Amino acid sequence: MTSASPTTYTVAQIAERVGATLHGEGATLVTGVASLDAVRPGSIVFAERERDVPRALESKAAAVVASIVPQAATSPAILETPNVRRTFAQICQLLFLGYPEEPRGVHPTAVIDPTAELGADVAIGPRVVVGPRVKIGARSTLRPGVMLDEDARVGEDCYFFSGVVVGRDCIIGDRCVIHPNAVIGADGFGFTDGFDASLKQPHFGRVVIGNDCEIGACTTIDRGTLDDTILGDDVKLDNLIIIGHNCKLGNHIRMAALCGVAGGVIIEDYCVIGGQSGFQNRVRVGRGSLIGGQSGVMRDVPPGSQFWGLPARNHRDALKELVLLQRLPDIVQRLDAAEQKIQQLLPAGVSDDDTGTDLD
Amino acid sequence: MTSASPTTYTVAQIAERVGATLHGEGATLVTGVASLDAVRPGSIVFAERERDVPRALESKAAAVVASIVPQAATSPAILETPNVRRTFAQICQLLFLGYPEEPRGVHPTAVIDPTAELGADVAIGPRVVVGPRVKIGARSTLRPGVMLDEDARVGEDCYFFSGVVVGRDCIIGDRCVIHPNAVIGADGFGFTDGFDASLKQPHFGRVVIGNDCEIGACTTIDRGTLDDTILGDDVKLDNLIIIGHNCKLGNHIRMAALCGVAGGVIIEDYCVIGGQSGFQNRVRVGRGSLIGGQSGVMRDVPPGSQFWGLPARNHRDALKELVLLQRLPDIVQRLDAAEQKIQQLLPAGVSDDDTGTDLD
Amino acid sequence: MTSASPTTYTVAQIAERVGATLHGEGATLVTGVASLDAVRPGSIVFAERERDVPRALESKAAAVVASIVPQAATSPAILETPNVRRTFAQICQLLFLGYPEEPRGVHPTAVIDPTAELGADVAIGPRVVVGPRVKIGARSTLRPGVMLDEDARVGEDCYFFSGVVVGRDCIIGDRCVIHPNAVIGADGFGFTDGFDASLKQPHFGRVVIGNDCEIGACTTIDRGTLDDTILGDDVKLDNLIIIGHNCKLGNHIRMAALCGVAGGVIIEDYCVIGGQSGFQNRVRVGRGSLIGGQSGVMRDVPPGSQFWGLPARNHRDALKELVLLQRLPDIVQRLDAAEQKIQQLLPAGVSDDDTGTDLD
Repeated sequence: MTSASPTTYTVAQIAERVGATLHGEGATLVTGVASLDAVRPGSIVFAERERDVPRALESKAAAVVASIVPQAATSPAILETPNVRRTFAQICQLLFLGYPEEPRGVHPTAVIDPTAELGADVAIGPRVVVGPRVKIGARSTLRPGVMLDEDARVGEDCYFFSGVVVGRDCIIGDRCVIHPNAVIGADGFGFTDGFDASLKQPHFGRVVIGNDCEIGACTTIDRGTLDDTILGDDVKLDNLIIIGHNCKLGNHIRMAALCGVAGGVIIEDYCVIGGQSGFQNRVRVGRGSLIGGQSGVMRDVPPGSQFWGLPARNHRDALKELVLLQRLPDIVQRLDAAEQKIQQLLPAGVSDDDTGTDLD
Repeated sequence: MTSASPTTYTVAQIAERVGATLHGEGATLVTGVASLDAVRPGSIVFAERERDVPRALESKAAAVVASIVPQAATSPAILETPNVRRTFAQICQLLFLGYPEEPRGVHPTAVIDPTAELGADVAIGPRVVVGPRVKIGARSTLRPGVMLDEDARVGEDCYFFSGVVVGRDCIIGDRCVIHPNAVIGADGFGFTDGFDASLKQPHFGRVVIGNDCEIGACTTIDRGTLDDTILGDDVKLDNLIIIGHNCKLGNHIRMAALCGVAGGVIIEDYCVIGGQSGFQNRVRVGRGSLIGGQSGVMRDVPPGSQFWGLPARNHRDALKELVLLQRLPDIVQRLDAAEQKIQQLLPAGVSDDDTGTDLD
Repeated sequence: MTSASPTTYTVAQIAERVGATLHGEGATLVTGVASLDAVRPGSIVFAERERDVPRALESKAAAVVASIVPQAATSPAILETPNVRRTFAQICQLLFLGYPEEPRGVHPTAVIDPTAELGADVAIGPRVVVGPRVKIGARSTLRPGVMLDEDARVGEDCYFFSGVVVGRDCIIGDRCVIHPNAVIGADGFGFTDGFDASLKQPHFGRVVIGNDCEIGACTTIDRGTLDDTILGDDVKLDNLIIIGHNCKLGNHIRMAALCGVAGGVIIEDYCVIGGQSGFQNRVRVGRGSLIGGQSGVMRDVPPGSQFWGLPARNHRDALKELVLLQRLPDIVQRLDAAEQKIQQLLPAGVSDDDTGTDLD
């Protein structure tokens, strides 16, 4: 663990800081956090599901974060909270910085264009390249090998991991995290028709990303053609996603890995998108929609929808169809039987050939 | 905009250069291009669809590129052309270089092996690594952090963005663009059977890419096992694609993001492939075929096909089946009803049990 | 070919080294390996399928690796072996190193933290960054631009290609190969619910990879939340895969490109996974299972299964359903015909409306 806590807390101090109700011994010093499968003495564990609580209470943990308190509980202590996962995340953030602190300042092997503007207390690691007129906000960290092209702008308190590339003119807000080898601002995929003499459509638009966003490893966000590709605030993208040119993503969006979002797609606030889903050019996904994994979104999705499948449609309908698809062998057998009986019922001399409709 | 026009043009001069017919005022100085949603005075906009023309003509644009000319039109000027998108791309290319010009020469932080051969007027950015015996053609640009391994060869007028890796022995033609963090020439995925003592199949083949190709961000093209993986001319690959070992792609191919092309696949000229499609080992896709997004191509595709679905099949058939799949609940209800009526029609004493076919 | 053989062998010497039975002339000097499509004099070719043998024997190869020996065969020589592909891989490994040898030692442009520990005979290329307290085992090679974060540990005889990023605390075993721009140890994708004030779950777990593993280009393996993400021995991952936080992969696993493995998934030994498949959170895939390409694994897979489809199910069932899906137009026509006949059979005055079940 490279990011040790600068201060230590007792169980009671932690309960107070995260607003949890303490049951039991509060004076124990907390040494860290752990999962139920690897409890260490002094650590805090969380019991998200009710059935995990007894097991957690039999462990050597210093405290258990839980939403229920069994009557018999005495030790370990319980930190009672209505939202176990959230409280646990708060504790993790209290105890640890999370990411390694780079030394503040500029590593001697970094290549910083003299026209670039660096905010106070930035940390710029080995072999970073910062291009002309780039601006980097206060306290942002660029890990080794990050490359920022001409006129890119990075907000305050950002943390970019190794190998991240940010293209010219792109803008990234405050408190954004970008994981290794992600690419912000490659060209969109657009060529004129007429193959033999196809012309590339130059891409002049930027990528503009809001505050508190997180971009996964090897995820690529393409710049707009003339206008910008836009991500709002608190957009969290997993790894290996492509956001196409001119997309507009709202705020508070979660998208799992390997999604392909084609050009000009609009995804409104509070959408949650399962992994490996695809979105056709220019579809709009309404506010608060859930799109199941591996969906193919081929038309607009009304706000508040739960869609799934290829093509993506109402989740219940898609499930029902899948169940029936698995019953198709039965259905065909029933149809065979029905046809036989009808044949028996028909007057002699009338055969299938008369109907002209059986193509089987 | 970092790539400002070195010269300025009037509307009339632009019309002449791109072969469009000018209607209206030609003396206006053009300051740039814009989309209909963000028109700036002095800019040229394009109205691709007929319904966009009136709106474009009400804007403050200097000129509108359109394929129709309303009688009443006077200002802005109209640049009439049969192919709006193509003419607009030509104007963009006329006005802007498109990509930032790196200073010609070799940045002092680049590591160039003494046996490498650099063409005239190359631009090699900070922290580039060029390995032994690499050859780079005239006027090619390597942005910061590009890495070219032993014996790689790059043509003339190429532009490789940051973080691109080209493996040993690979060959890339003229005027190719490779976007950030793409990987040319990783090993193919091949191991002998027999797990406990599985042997890796060494990959000696190269990747050989023709002229005028474009490779998207984080796209990976694997080298061949013994022979080469080959891309023809004018192949445009979007982001996050894998082209497997020993594939042969023809000329004038477009492939959208996140496609997975397994080993030994042949894709003939003029194919267009939708995003997230997969291709099984050694299938052949015939010339001029269109493969819809998220398809699974499991057998050969005849030339000129329009295929879609999993498994990929004729597009119309696949659509028809999907429509019927969504009608399966109806179909089952109709079958239920038919069975009931047959039961009513049958002489008393004959029951379903006699048929032995109803598995429901 | 940058990796020329340091020594040369005759056909007979090769036969002896790989345990194949020699038929024909053994004194020929072997100059390399080749495919049947590009045979060069002096090269060894392989004829995996019986039908390839006659063609191979008509070529100018020095020897043919085959599992059958035609009576008439005299020249080229035949190296008889029950497992053609395996023997051929052995010959490739005998003749070539496979990967370019970097000069041993540390390139002057590499940035090595003084607290890092480098094993004997490591080869560290230009612009590599090795962070604090990193340990690298003997004879491992880091190609240009590899970046190892704080406290990472790399085993012996590893070969990491350009642009690989290994995050803090991660552990990689012996003889592992990692291809360009792969990312080991990015954060998992986990956020607390409650969007407006969503909290990131810090990820303290590591990625721990066993021996003899191979990781494809631009593949990303996320670190665990509290516990580790674990890969066993001899796990081979293709390009552009994501392995989510807290996954446990056993030994001897093969996974093709573009798979998405969500958090907490367990994949037991000897599984083979087709490309573009997705795995839902926390499913378990039993030992020795085969998962077809583009599957969606939404529930546990029993050991030894052959699953395919979305949702993934028994391969035969899935295929049967797909065949029937393609027959749905017929099925509907047959149902239409059956309904017509029933209508004819019913006494006059009884109509469909009476049943209330026909929704068509």
